[in-house]
Amino acid sequence: MDINEKSYAYGAAKSSIREIAAYGAARKAQIGAENVFDFSLGNPSVPAPDAVRKSILKNAELPPAQLHGYTPASGMPAAREAVANSLNRRFGTSYDPGDLYLTCGAAAAISITLNAIVNPGDEVIVIAPYFPEYRVWIETAGATCVEVMADATTFQADTEAVAKAITPKTKAVMIDSPNNPVGAVYTRQTLEALAQVLTTRGEELGHDIYLISDEPYREITYGAEVPWVPSLYDRTIVCYSYSKSLSLPGERIGWVLVPNTNPRHDELVYAVAGAGRKLGFVCAPALFQRVLIDCVDEPTNVEAYATNRKALTDGLSKLGYEYIEPDGAFYLWVKSLEPDAEAFFNKAKALEILPVPSNSFGCTGWVRLGYCVSLDTIQNSMPAWEKLRNQYK
Amino acid sequence: MDINEKSYAYGAAKSSIREIAAYGAARKAQIGAENVFDFSLGNPSVPAPDAVRKSILKNAELPPAQLHGYTPASGMPAAREAVANSLNRRFGTSYDPGDLYLTCGAAAAISITLNAIVNPGDEVIVIAPYFPEYRVWIETAGATCVEVMADATTFQADTEAVAKAITPKTKAVMIDSPNNPVGAVYTRQTLEALAQVLTTRGEELGHDIYLISDEPYREITYGAEVPWVPSLYDRTIVCYSYSKSLSLPGERIGWVLVPNTNPRHDELVYAVAGAGRKLGFVCAPALFQRVLIDCVDEPTNVEAYATNRKALTDGLSKLGYEYIEPDGAFYLWVKSLEPDAEAFFNKAKALEILPVPSNSFGCTGWVRLGYCVSLDTIQNSMPAWEKLRNQYK
Repeated sequence: MDINEKSYAYGAAKSSIREIAAYGAARKAQIGAENVFDFSLGNPSVPAPDAVRKSILKNAELPPAQLHGYTPASGMPAAREAVANSLNRRFGTSYDPGDLYLTCGAAAAISITLNAIVNPGDEVIVIAPYFPEYRVWIETAGATCVEVMADATTFQADTEAVAKAITPKTKAVMIDSPNNPVGAVYTRQTLEALAQVLTTRGEELGHDIYLISDEPYREITYGAEVPWVPSLYDRTIVCYSYSKSLSLPGERIGWVLVPNTNPRHDELVYAVAGAGRKLGFVCAPALFQRVLIDCVDEPTNVEAYATNRKALTDGLSKLGYEYIEPDGAFYLWVKSLEPDAEAFFNKAKALEILPVPSNSFGCTGWVRLGYCVSLDTIQNSMPAWEKLRNQYK
Repeated sequence: MDINEKSYAYGAAKSSIREIAAYGAARKAQIGAENVFDFSLGNPSVPAPDAVRKSILKNAELPPAQLHGYTPASGMPAAREAVANSLNRRFGTSYDPGDLYLTCGAAAAISITLNAIVNPGDEVIVIAPYFPEYRVWIETAGATCVEVMADATTFQADTEAVAKAITPKTKAVMIDSPNNPVGAVYTRQTLEALAQVLTTRGEELGHDIYLISDEPYREITYGAEVPWVPSLYDRTIVCYSYSKSLSLPGERIGWVLVPNTNPRHDELVYAVAGAGRKLGFVCAPALFQRVLIDCVDEPTNVEAYATNRKALTDGLSKLGYEYIEPDGAFYLWVKSLEPDAEAFFNKAKALEILPVPSNSFGCTGWVRLGYCVSLDTIQNSMPAWEKLRNQYK
């Protein structure tokens, strides 16, 4: 082929979530936004805090060459220091700016981390259901994506199943807690068991098994504890983004943290920087690095998502739908009313409801609803959900 | 190895340009900025036009969820339309937004383009001296970087040498005109000859040879014509950045253009989108996409660079230095006073002058001076240049 086939395929197929969102946008233009109940995307409905606007206005008055110039590849020292200080205050750690590499969002952070540690032929374990782009990034880094199903009832990571899936080729396990798409938050007990498995199997195999902890939803929880993963397993690398916590998904700002407790810290810091360089990342957007200095500790408006969550779960449970009660993030994992989630999705779509079928996340029989939408969308969707339910009676 | 060796090596070695710049920053802190003559970086000294500030202030008042939300992966339609319209006005073309894919700067644009077209084992030709990161991105995409020396006198692409270097594995030739590091601008004649070579050899080999035209310095010229490359060769893909023309290097905003005249247009558009997706690029920074809508046609302050260029060339020629008269960009290519450019660099460094030795750009015997610095730096550096010259008398 005269071009790269895999790139072509990834471009032609697109992400199924983005496909449904594009259909939703077109459909809204056709019949009116108020008549489409689009639960497909994870685009926060809560606005960025006003401190972001204030920080932009303040920084816009800096000398432009200073404001918009290249920053070090790993980010401005002051921005990395602000992030390190925030983590240290919250988790009792002692990180310094050198442990952080600022990125163009979590996608870049994960892609960079994988390219920093993976060699061709390695395996990376994901806990299904999982964010579908994980597979794309794992395969691009040259590894095989190995799916391990979460516990079928609690959707906690099934640590025994992880232990069984580990082979001499296993380089890393990826988790995201609070979880997309289910909303599960891994308990301290789950993470301790996982750490035990990775330690024991790593020692048996004679090589490190890294834990990549993708944490864009850390700040969005409904009472559950979100343990600090590196304090439980020292071979952890953390990937973070302000897309959800500060509602800045379009601005592409996040980071990779190589905790100073990681026994391979110095090598990993270099490998992360090298991976960023080789993929074509030069630095994270400079203005938003400065916004972080001002806004890193701004609280996330979880209340709005909690209200949406209650409206959606109350409405759907009244109609007899089954779902997993989410402890975090802003997704509801709803049981399909027939075994084929795609067929269920198509019936929903005919009623202008747009969830994402679970096939996209590596399992069957469920759909994901993003409730990072307006409360009106949730409330107004209920008659359509009722019609859908009645089709199965 | 427990991590990726190449990523480690790219991180541990760093870019030599960045190494020198880091030394310069440390040295300035030590002995005062006015005592270090740092010509290492391509960080524009000309401030971004005030229209950028005004656009930021205006856009900061938009509803935040609209302003900071995800955009389509290829960019906001309105931003791509603004770019397409600007190109069409200037080059008599008929591009539409679908031909453009907005990126996090030119580094991302080039990395994405290479990953869109290259398969493992391919070869990509660069014209030496060349921007050293080209090799990193070419190798990361799985190809071999093949260096072809430019004409030794004019530093135009040596099209006969390119013809000889083409093999059945040649997938693409990369050019940047105005050129970094020499400041050469390829003439229409050179580009026509290059197009002829690529057409003929491509037909003989029975496959397309792409021309990747990296154009961050298009707007910075001192009278020379910069022909529109796709109008001369239809298998061209253009990579652009606003880092230099709008002085926004830290903000990471640029694009890939697949011209609608490219016979493989539709395939390439998908492959570019797929490559962006697989490398972990989600969208270009949203606020600066909006800034483009307002500022895409802002003129570049070339006058300031012309003043610097004159001061530097006047000063150095009086001292007896030889250099290539630059037709574009903001670099001066100065002949080393001894065959070993690294040794010459070290003597310069001892006098607090920081150029970049030509070894970094794939050839020996020269240094690059970035004159995107203050006029004072240039003027105040002359006594040091004189001392350096006298060491060779």
